[in-house]
Amino acid sequence: MSAAPKVLAICGGVGGAKLALGLDRVLPPGDLALLVNTGDDFVHLGLQISPDLDTVMYTLAGVVSQAQGWGREGDTRRFLDEIVRCGGPGWFQIGDLDLAVHVERTRRLAAGESLTAVTAGLARAFGVRSLLLPMSDDPVRTLLDTVDEGVLEFQEYFVRRRCEPRVRAIRFSGAEAARPSATALALLDAPGLEAVLLCPSNPWLSVAPMLAMPALRQALAVCRAPVVAVSPVVAGRAVKGPTAKLMQELDLEVSAVTVAAHYAGLIDGYVLDRQDAALLPRIGLTAVALPTVMRSLEDRDALARGVLAFARGLSTGPRLRMVS
Amino acid sequence: MSAAPKVLAICGGVGGAKLALGLDRVLPPGDLALLVNTGDDFVHLGLQISPDLDTVMYTLAGVVSQAQGWGREGDTRRFLDEIVRCGGPGWFQIGDLDLAVHVERTRRLAAGESLTAVTAGLARAFGVRSLLLPMSDDPVRTLLDTVDEGVLEFQEYFVRRRCEPRVRAIRFSGAEAARPSATALALLDAPGLEAVLLCPSNPWLSVAPMLAMPALRQALAVCRAPVVAVSPVVAGRAVKGPTAKLMQELDLEVSAVTVAAHYAGLIDGYVLDRQDAALLPRIGLTAVALPTVMRSLEDRDALARGVLAFARGLSTGPRLRMVS
Repeated sequence: MSAAPKVLAICGGVGGAKLALGLDRVLPPGDLALLVNTGDDFVHLGLQISPDLDTVMYTLAGVVSQAQGWGREGDTRRFLDEIVRCGGPGWFQIGDLDLAVHVERTRRLAAGESLTAVTAGLARAFGVRSLLLPMSDDPVRTLLDTVDEGVLEFQEYFVRRRCEPRVRAIRFSGAEAARPSATALALLDAPGLEAVLLCPSNPWLSVAPMLAMPALRQALAVCRAPVVAVSPVVAGRAVKGPTAKLMQELDLEVSAVTVAAHYAGLIDGYVLDRQDAALLPRIGLTAVALPTVMRSLEDRDALARGVLAFARGLSTGPRLRMVS
Repeated sequence: MSAAPKVLAICGGVGGAKLALGLDRVLPPGDLALLVNTGDDFVHLGLQISPDLDTVMYTLAGVVSQAQGWGREGDTRRFLDEIVRCGGPGWFQIGDLDLAVHVERTRRLAAGESLTAVTAGLARAFGVRSLLLPMSDDPVRTLLDTVDEGVLEFQEYFVRRRCEPRVRAIRFSGAEAARPSATALALLDAPGLEAVLLCPSNPWLSVAPMLAMPALRQALAVCRAPVVAVSPVVAGRAVKGPTAKLMQELDLEVSAVTVAAHYAGLIDGYVLDRQDAALLPRIGLTAVALPTVMRSLEDRDALARGVLAFARGLSTGPRLRMVS
């Protein structure tokens, strides 16, 4: 019998999955639960697609494309080329191996299984040992209000339009009513929980959909374990993806300080990159500078160990965080 | 401007598709319409699958697997192997190329397009020049009442159970209420129609679902063009598939005579194989013996020409057939 996970990591796709992999590797089996963003989920070609869940699952299963950070290593696009030939859309990449997960997820959801159950089944089939949790079984959809192209769904913005449209606001349709993962809520309330980690995912696109669910935000605010965030902004640049461009469009300074301020009231500790050590005095809470740029597997393991050690050092008993 | 098709061929999958290809090749472009069985259609992995429509489309597009007679030449099973890995069913063959058609069909049907419209769009994308018509946009499901395993859906019987269960009755759920292809009904009523051909498909499994729709049976009975059937039974054996085994289980003599008797009242002429020329006196209507076993492309063309010539020779004006 394995006990309940002791660490809950909250993450989105590629960026967060790197730290998730390190955590999965350095923690004893069964000690890690991952709460994953589903605000990017969408229906495409009639298929239920959960990009972040797939990225995390493929990463932890060791089958992710090393070059992309998402999708399957060695995948092919025979199916997708045929879809285009049939007159269908080709802008969203779906490999022949990758497709199996989408079809199987769609089939099981249509048969009445919850996304939580489907995710657990797929993760088991892929040999993932950590607990993989969708943030909710209810639909939450990240919508981007753009200056020139109106409101875009996440994948329309992110993939089809390659993050080119200027964003003026982001909202999370359905988040107010969505019930967060019951397992995650129970973990946050469990006495054995040792740390909650916000992985270096995009705070506004990948973590925000989760925090937009009132019950999850509340559970984080009152949980006894320390909550630590890792900055995805390093030396004034985003390590990955559109974070920096988005921050500029939202009139935010592209800096690890901004991310800390964004999470203020919700976290007990903050990890920024050692290149940003000079910013430590500007972070208004306990913070540490660590090498956060993960290129090798060893980088991932080292950051995971460093973040866990930092979080455990913060573990000084119950506290009450702000609920904004 | 192309005029309305002059020949309507009625067919199921592999066996009928061979003659369909010959007809497609020897007739002027636009002269052929194919009314295809959809009684074998089913939902699998959440996908809308139309095996006979696909077989005919792939055959006419020149992309069908030469070895199998169905599916795509040179297809791979990366997707299907992954489905099995994910815990899904692997018994129904879906190649990576083949899958595109299922996904695109499912997507368009879910978007509200009719099966007729989806089929036309796919056929156009595949460069098929003849008119491909599903027998109906309404669901008709072929069900097999078996001696030992109860009622099986067609694909359960045909693929999963490899036609092994003994059949005692066949029925076509939904056929009474299904509206036949409006285009086919219009063609059957058009003065320009020169021939209706029942391809050498399984009369009880592939052609019967169509004839089970009262309006189609009625339209065939009153159409002015000659109706000609080609026997799928040659020398007491079925050329392809479970026809012979099924006939035995239904206590029918496995003979071209039985097929002619089955179609009696509905057809004006009958084509059997030259190996069965001795049976001609036992066929109670105008019949001809032709080489019906199609191995090469030339065989297909020759039979198509022979059947068309035979049918046109029967074209002696209006007649009224029996409606059973």
